[in-house]
Amino acid sequence: MKTLLLIGIGAGDPEHLTVQAINALNRASVFFVLDKGQTTDDLVRLRLEICERYIREPGYRVVQVSDPQRDSTTLSYIQGVEDWHEQRADLFTRLIEHEMADGECAAFLLWGEPGLYDSTLRILERVRANGCSPFDYEVIPGISSVQALAARHRVPLNGIGQPIRITTGRRLVADDLDNVVVMLDAHCAFQAFVQENLDIYWGAYIGTADELLIAGKLEDVCEQIKQVREAARQRKGWIMDTYLLRRREEKSH
Amino acid sequence: MKTLLLIGIGAGDPEHLTVQAINALNRASVFFVLDKGQTTDDLVRLRLEICERYIREPGYRVVQVSDPQRDSTTLSYIQGVEDWHEQRADLFTRLIEHEMADGECAAFLLWGEPGLYDSTLRILERVRANGCSPFDYEVIPGISSVQALAARHRVPLNGIGQPIRITTGRRLVADDLDNVVVMLDAHCAFQAFVQENLDIYWGAYIGTADELLIAGKLEDVCEQIKQVREAARQRKGWIMDTYLLRRREEKSH
Repeated sequence: MKTLLLIGIGAGDPEHLTVQAINALNRASVFFVLDKGQTTDDLVRLRLEICERYIREPGYRVVQVSDPQRDSTTLSYIQGVEDWHEQRADLFTRLIEHEMADGECAAFLLWGEPGLYDSTLRILERVRANGCSPFDYEVIPGISSVQALAARHRVPLNGIGQPIRITTGRRLVADDLDNVVVMLDAHCAFQAFVQENLDIYWGAYIGTADELLIAGKLEDVCEQIKQVREAARQRKGWIMDTYLLRRREEKSH
Repeated sequence: MKTLLLIGIGAGDPEHLTVQAINALNRASVFFVLDKGQTTDDLVRLRLEICERYIREPGYRVVQVSDPQRDSTTLSYIQGVEDWHEQRADLFTRLIEHEMADGECAAFLLWGEPGLYDSTLRILERVRANGCSPFDYEVIPGISSVQALAARHRVPLNGIGQPIRITTGRRLVADDLDNVVVMLDAHCAFQAFVQENLDIYWGAYIGTADELLIAGKLEDVCEQIKQVREAARQRKGWIMDTYLLRRREEKSH
């Protein structure tokens, strides 16, 4: 049986790796690295550095492949994602069939937490459903950018006994702003809510040497975040940022 | 300056510790262990085992103190929590003032993720506001039981592009059951929703030798979970469990 390991490698700091993740790295003999194009060379490099730092025995292989691009011109968001997942499933099937020997163990190194806005698990289910030769897989949790953000700002994610919502920029809505964490927001969706009496805790490239952190009343720091974000995106060619919005409370002490 | 480290130590498996957490353990010379009474001796023991396993130099001190009990008979939930936080703030102030030398580094070992349903950060803010002698503090994120649950069940936490809600049993409501993770539920709040066409992914003592996992259609496994949970709670004297509820979809492939 072939085994695939989906290893959460944290939000950017190589020290986010868990002992479980390091042990998993050392079980794999082949690493599948998906390359999303020149702008994210940094992210490929960081993964290779993690391999070099933590793998004790040399001789492992790295298979670098171009990740299919999601067609964002498709009218339906869901259909665009479905098509992209199908292309990725074909790619993963080829990797499993042709790049792994019988009994071999391969790993995907996934940013953040494999269960949080990462499609790899869903695509492997599709690969199985599509009739790929049998394989087993395991998931190793990792520190998400949400957690790294909260830690760097030293804020709790939840209010006392309150729920937390984790969502995407596309789905950020005014009726659930008490404690909401936003990921994958290319359009600064927070700017629509400057009148809502919110605090924002924002971070980009968290855990890396390029880390940026801004916190404050949303109405005070909204423009600053937009400017800092755009300048960084232009300078590096890509950005990964996350933020927590919280309804401001009267201080009880 | 005294420094406090709030170290997330994962959901129960000592291999959940990150490299960052292990480095933090090795910076501290004193560990504050809050003992919630006989029923959670297991949790104290697991923390001491983590110290023994990962701290390279001997000679660290462990200060074990009884955690104040939250008064659950108070009429207002918030007021009960506020009172409990104030008692804990007094306790923490005494620890910082009397159990740490100038320039010393102390650590709290926190289950799961320090930003998620853990009061330590909030209590330290209160300690500062109450006029304790100055101290600095850092937060080291950890694998939460939410992540460990998703990894063990090999399920994504979110639907495609959908939000996730993390909440407590007390706040679980019928209008937000699409993707909801429930923590701190002593009363099996899920049983109110067996008619809602939900899947449940449930786990207890995740990552430990006592781990229990049950998944299925809520209407099929609801009673099983209740029985298994109650038997385990009686056997061990305590339980930590978490679950993901997800609205069942028609399979598109």
